[in-house]
This record gives sequence, structure tokens and C-alpha cells, in this order.
Amino acid sequence: MKVSQVGEDALLASLLRGSLGSPKLIGDDCVVVEFRDAKNLLVLKTDCVVERIHFQSATDPALVGWKAMMRPLSDFAAISGIPQFALITLIIPAKRSMHWVHELYRGLNRAAVKFDLAIVGGETSATRGPVAISVSVAGYVERNRSVSRSGGKRGDDLFVTGRLGGSLRGKHLRFVPRIEESRWLTTHFGVHAMMDLSDGLGADLPRFARASKLGFKIDKAALPLAAGAKIDNAISDGEDYELLFAISPRDRQRLEKSWRKKFPKLPLTRIGCLIQPLNNSTSQVLPGGYIHFQ
Amino acid sequence: MKVSQVGEDALLASLLRGSLGSPKLIGDDCVVVEFRDAKNLLVLKTDCVVERIHFQSATDPALVGWKAMMRPLSDFAAISGIPQFALITLIIPAKRSMHWVHELYRGLNRAAVKFDLAIVGGETSATRGPVAISVSVAGYVERNRSVSRSGGKRGDDLFVTGRLGGSLRGKHLRFVPRIEESRWLTTHFGVHAMMDLSDGLGADLPRFARASKLGFKIDKAALPLAAGAKIDNAISDGEDYELLFAISPRDRQRLEKSWRKKFPKLPLTRIGCLIQPLNNSTSQVLPGGYIHFQ
Repeated sequence: MKVSQVGEDALLASLLRGSLGSPKLIGDDCVVVEFRDAKNLLVLKTDCVVERIHFQSATDPALVGWKAMMRPLSDFAAISGIPQFALITLIIPAKRSMHWVHELYRGLNRAAVKFDLAIVGGETSATRGPVAISVSVAGYVERNRSVSRSGGKRGDDLFVTGRLGGSLRGKHLRFVPRIEESRWLTTHFGVHAMMDLSDGLGADLPRFARASKLGFKIDKAALPLAAGAKIDNAISDGEDYELLFAISPRDRQRLEKSWRKKFPKLPLTRIGCLIQPLNNSTSQVLPGGYIHFQ
Repeated sequence: MKVSQVGEDALLASLLRGSLGSPKLIGDDCVVVEFRDAKNLLVLKTDCVVERIHFQSATDPALVGWKAMMRPLSDFAAISGIPQFALITLIIPAKRSMHWVHELYRGLNRAAVKFDLAIVGGETSATRGPVAISVSVAGYVERNRSVSRSGGKRGDDLFVTGRLGGSLRGKHLRFVPRIEESRWLTTHFGVHAMMDLSDGLGADLPRFARASKLGFKIDKAALPLAAGAKIDNAISDGEDYELLFAISPRDRQRLEKSWRKKFPKLPLTRIGCLIQPLNNSTSQVLPGGYIHFQ
């Protein structure tokens, strides 16, 4: 059997199955663990971008650096964590120009400055293949602020931030992770479950509901569409890096009102709700989002 | 200018120069930082292995996994830290067999179990190039146990563990990081400076001495040689993953005696000492070790 016949979730699951790691961590956005005697929890996340998979060879390297850093930070947003330290692994052919590398680093640094993050170390390696940049981030979250994917309750409202679809036209290289919004949410509301949308609602929402052992119902017509995007784009394009979260319908009015006041330029949209799971399937069938390796 | 004309140290330096990270971290084995209110220090390290650079395509994937995990753990040994959590990024072509992946994970897991480490998360990506495995490790070190490269004093003895040279004949895929030895050293002795030898003594020793603003003098005839290795191999081959450390000559006798008792199968060899730096150069010229990108 080939890697392409298995898919990313199964690959990760088979990695974690044999390990000492708790299997409940599979598929979660970040790893959240105890650090010795510390009051706060340690948050870890690693992510990578690969040439010709996540960016084109001709893409502005400063934007590649921005994206490489912002992807793991979007996972910090998902759990309401604060990123503090980043390590960069740069795998790059010897013939690549130093100008390209400097521009890449400029993008990485600009992204780090945006979130008061320190790039504290890294590693470089030669390669005979495409450039790959792996970014590992460590940070923290207060015990009572950490949000996982799996706390959703039946009847919870489902909200998404921003607009979905069409990210490949540019947003995927320039997005700003929703850390500020996520921290605000967990300051003022009891968010039951949250994730960031990276593979498209069509792939991510079923995972999200399944993590809480629930189904979902969405109102496709209510989906907030990016300029030029259609409903199918909102479901399948991926790389939205918006938040999807579940919250009690009792909070709906207060949330919508205070959100508009706090973030007047960023839409917040109720797209549906979590429901009792339907038989075998996870309720409403969505055309899949972007699935790696397929 | 191309990446090949610059070299790894300069690449990393230019990454860190523009960042919020403290420049003193450049070239150190691990990142050691404060974590919020915790008593212990947080230790972070990332490393990677790339197909056709660090291993051959035909290499047993279980050994590749072992090596990928053990490389960053060797850096924990260097600073006397305890690794706790690992994140794995696997960049792999879709056509690679799942058997290969399972064997790789078996090696990663075997290495993690050896040091009570939990593989807690990861990321996978497709690629159109060679396989790359990046491993990020988080752990801790007590404030009074952390050792850097830069605390060497003039007149300190220089010791190395194990035997040097010829690693490519097999040891580079099967080595055991000297974590136990390093922890024992910092329990019983005041180690002034320490590093792990990854690029060969010829490249690493000048860096080591320079970090303490000192020169060095070594007795080449005293170098502990691996079976079949010559002096040049011990200096230039690289991938020894042994400890190099500086310690007061007042401790020499007690160290050598108690080491033999504690680790009877592992040689500990005094190879020279740290001296006043000579004019411009870092004293004795060594044929270079393995320099990435050249």
C-alpha cells in the first residue's frame, strides 16, 4: 500500500498509536501538556510548507516565510494559546540564492514580530529536492482557557470567523491567524470546542463534529463567502485559516452583539449547529475539502 | 551569492539576527528559555534528516527513524537536559510504501521509548522530492544543571566520551545519545562547557573554544579512535554524537576514577586543554570536519 492510499489522518494516527503519546491528541490542533511544576500548560505545534505543494517556486519568498510561520500560529488560535518561541528548520538546495533565503527570513521575522514571538533557534540542511520549511512553536495556555475540538455539546451553535473560499487567490500567503479573536472569545465566553479551518469546511467540519461524537447540520446558504467565491469554494478550497467554534445557543445574542463592537471589520457567522449523530454517517454529506496525498 | 557559498552557521546566524531571539543562542545545541512561572527551564531543539543527505534511499527505515529521533536528543545530552515530548514532521512522496512508513515509525518509537519520551504530535506533507523527517523535542533542565558551550575556562581539561571516527560505517544510524552520561556528569561535577560532536572534532572543537573566547591544544595521538579509524577520521568524519566537555584539571583524577566505575564500557579520554587564544586564529589548525553545503 502506498502513502497516497492512506491519507494524512491515518498516517498521523499510525505514528501516534505506537508511541507513549496519549491517543486523544490525534488530530488536535496543538499538543497541550503539563510542564513540570508550571501553573500554565505548555503548548507545542509543528507545521511545514513544501515547495510545489504549499507554494510555487516563483512565489515571493517573503510571503512563503509569512505563511510558514502563520500556519502553526493558526493552530495556537484554535486552542486559544499564546505562542512564544519558534524554531525554524530550513531544508534547501545549495544552489538556491542567498537573496531568496534573506527574503524568506524577512517574512518569517515579520510574522514573528506581529505576534511578539521570538525565533530562538533552528536547523538547516541541504537537499537534492524542493525547499521545505518546518516551523515548531512553543507557548502556553492557562488551564481554564485551553479549548479542544472535542468539547462540543448537542445543540451548540456553530460559528465561523471571516469569509471562506478562494484562499489560493492570495489569502493563503497573507492571512493573519485569529489569535486575538480567539483570546477575546475565551476571555468573555465559554467556548465548548474550536479549531482552525485549514483543509476546508468539507473536510474539517466532519472531523470537528466527530471529535465531540456528534453530527452537524449546516445552512449552506448562510456560509460567509469570500469575494468571488461560491458555496463549493467555501466548502472545498481549504486554507481559510478561520476559526470554527461551538458555543451554547444561550450565548448567541450576547456574542453577536459584542463581536460586532469588538471586531467591526471581521464577520462572525452562525453556519449551523451540532446535532445527535445520525446512524453510521456523520450526518450531512459534504464534498470533501483538500485531502493531502490524494 | 548561493547557499553553498555561505554555510550553515552563517545561514542560522542571518535567521536569528533579524529576530527577537537573543543572538547568544546562535550555534548552541539547544534553546534554553524561561517558561512562565516554572522552576525549571524549558529546553527546545529541532533537527532533521533528509534522504540522500543524511541517509541513503536503501537504508533500513527503522534505522532512519532511530537516527531522526536520536539527533536532537544528542543535543539534549549536550546541555544536560531531559527530553519529554517529541513532534514529528514527515515530508514524504505519495508513492512511498506504507511499509516504509511503518518501519520508520517503529524506529522513531523505539528511540522514544529508550528515553521515556512521548511522541505527542506531528504533521505530514506530500512532496515531489526526497523524504525529510524533522523532529522537534521539548523538555527541561534544572537551572543549576544547564551547561552551554561557552563556560570554558583557560586551562580546563578537554574530555571526549567514546571513540571517534568511522561513524558512516554504521554508528551514525545506531548511536545512543549520551544523556545518561551527561546527567551523571552534572550531578557529580562542575562541567564548565559541553557540546555533542556532530560535525567532527575538526569543525566542532574550534567552535567550542571560540564560544568561550579561548583557543585549544589537543594531543592528536591521544584521540580515542573507533575500530578501523585513523586520526584523520576522528577529526573529520563527523556524526560521532559523543560529548566534548571542559572541566577544571583539579577534577581530573576524581572524574577519571569515578567514570571508570560508573561507565566501565565507555572510554573517557582527555584529549587536550583550553588555552589563551592565539592572535587571530583559534590556535592549532585542524582539517575541517563535515561542513554542510560544501
